[in-house]
Amino acid sequence: MATTLPRQIATTLRTSPNALIACHVSPDGDCIGASLALALALNRLGVPAVVGSADGVPEMFTDLPGAAEIMTVPPVEAFTTAVAMECSTIDRAGAFAEALQRARTLINIDHHLSNAGYGHLVYWDTSASAVGEQITEIIRALGTPVDAAIAQCLLAALVTDTGAFRYPNVTPHTLRLAAELVEAGGSIHRVVERVYETRSPGSLKLLGMALASVRLSADGRVAWTVVTPEMMAAAGALPEDTTGIVGMLRAMRGVKVALMFEVTPDGIRASIRSRDGARSNVIAETFGGGGHQGAAGFTLPGTLDDVVMKALAVVDKELHEADGARPRTTGNEVTRKRGNRKTR
Amino acid sequence: MATTLPRQIATTLRTSPNALIACHVSPDGDCIGASLALALALNRLGVPAVVGSADGVPEMFTDLPGAAEIMTVPPVEAFTTAVAMECSTIDRAGAFAEALQRARTLINIDHHLSNAGYGHLVYWDTSASAVGEQITEIIRALGTPVDAAIAQCLLAALVTDTGAFRYPNVTPHTLRLAAELVEAGGSIHRVVERVYETRSPGSLKLLGMALASVRLSADGRVAWTVVTPEMMAAAGALPEDTTGIVGMLRAMRGVKVALMFEVTPDGIRASIRSRDGARSNVIAETFGGGGHQGAAGFTLPGTLDDVVMKALAVVDKELHEADGARPRTTGNEVTRKRGNRKTR
Repeated sequence: MATTLPRQIATTLRTSPNALIACHVSPDGDCIGASLALALALNRLGVPAVVGSADGVPEMFTDLPGAAEIMTVPPVEAFTTAVAMECSTIDRAGAFAEALQRARTLINIDHHLSNAGYGHLVYWDTSASAVGEQITEIIRALGTPVDAAIAQCLLAALVTDTGAFRYPNVTPHTLRLAAELVEAGGSIHRVVERVYETRSPGSLKLLGMALASVRLSADGRVAWTVVTPEMMAAAGALPEDTTGIVGMLRAMRGVKVALMFEVTPDGIRASIRSRDGARSNVIAETFGGGGHQGAAGFTLPGTLDDVVMKALAVVDKELHEADGARPRTTGNEVTRKRGNRKTR
Repeated sequence: MATTLPRQIATTLRTSPNALIACHVSPDGDCIGASLALALALNRLGVPAVVGSADGVPEMFTDLPGAAEIMTVPPVEAFTTAVAMECSTIDRAGAFAEALQRARTLINIDHHLSNAGYGHLVYWDTSASAVGEQITEIIRALGTPVDAAIAQCLLAALVTDTGAFRYPNVTPHTLRLAAELVEAGGSIHRVVERVYETRSPGSLKLLGMALASVRLSADGRVAWTVVTPEMMAAAGALPEDTTGIVGMLRAMRGVKVALMFEVTPDGIRASIRSRDGARSNVIAETFGGGGHQGAAGFTLPGTLDDVVMKALAVVDKELHEADGARPRTTGNEVTRKRGNRKTR
């Protein structure tokens, strides 16, 4: 039973005259890596498959095989088969949403709880640590040998979605799959170097400034910091250089909720990370934002002091609830029992 | 052939009336975890085995099964069999060196290049990512089932010596072993939380201050920073809170050599990290220090400015040589072909 759906999807793709694989907007390594791996496997079988990403490819993944061919604008002609990769709704594909709608067969592949369940074939497995695990099942069903290029793309997916095997979503299956991909010629370290070891001097200085001014509240269970345009200028940092700051705050001893407040032209942008049962998404939703339990965000007009004060009040409330009867989780899970798949 | 030595060691230990397992001074997670795993396995078989660590147990490993029973002072009576765990020379066992010398059978187990090859049974495997891998072979030869307690100790070994699977020393074998240990009831995330997610506020502030004042030289190939008693006081940090600072400098884009200079009562203490063929140990040895290719250190009397200037001059020379004909390595390897073991 468990392998029926990957096999159905493989059959559909193998016999399709062409295929579009569409990433979600702001694509991550899992989405890009899994999409490229599937496209490479289909190309090996003679099926013309292209990857579309409305927001392009983050710099750290531009070295992946096939990344240079990723389209950012959909072509005029329609596709017979289209795959929505990790798109909770069709809209999440951005400029490629219409192409997904127009495809004769729409395949929806995701491992996130939030998936809306659209499409003709829905391969939804919340027990997968990365969508790359699901794509591996499809590639196996296709019968394409996993060569070094495909292995590298799948490792990019696995490594980025597990924090390089540090998150609690890692299973023995994830580790064994990683072993096979290394044997096939992939390199974990190449992904780690590109993703975790490429901070610019400006980015590192900004991180330092943000960490040096960390503040605690709620008996050390909440850590927060701010990033201002003045700090960015002093550090020589770029907007994307705020990546990783809030995650380091959450990794502090005793911290359950971490927040970073950025002063932007649109207002104060808050990034939230949580663990031990505190729900980032509930905090963000109070202010019209969103995300998942371990990571969420919102943007609010107002002064920095004002937004910080409002946010900390809501965090306190959430901490109070998290201390209640709800079972504790680590905040990083993508869980639900394996085999939770459906077709319609 | 490859399994002869673990089997010989297992036979010796199983039939021994008692056993001492001695850690090296300043023990790391690999040494502590592997020692505890072996002791637990022997205890299950009725062999009284104790772990000795002259420098005790780092706080982050005190939750490992059996950690509370680790001795810091050797008992008066002699041991029939003793294991030197990751001790390049017998002296590295500190207060336990004499007990190792006095044992009827001395077993030397290590995966570092620097091992001097002493002892009656020498199990030296530089292809192992962690000595925990070697201990797994011995436990298999003993026939003790790997239960959750043993699995947790072995995972502590594997995770800490591979930077949670981020270093290039990770092999498919490492990943498959980790999968088995998770299945046996061990948790990777528990180790990650204790080792990588427990910075105190003071430690995080110190890290921030050190990163914010990072300086570059040699066209961005060298990054360095300083830690002064004034910074420690301002951050509310402890001496051990400098951990991880120099590693973050090395992880910067383009950096080949990273240095942290600490002002201490003994002089200026330099910590060096390198990659891409630059040799930390060669730099450190110039100043009477030591270490290995990727990580080394030295302490020198003098003013901060003076020591920084001298060190950067030697780093420049090493970078010049690293750019030469020597084959490039990543600086994290513990390499030599598997099966490089000997007995005497």
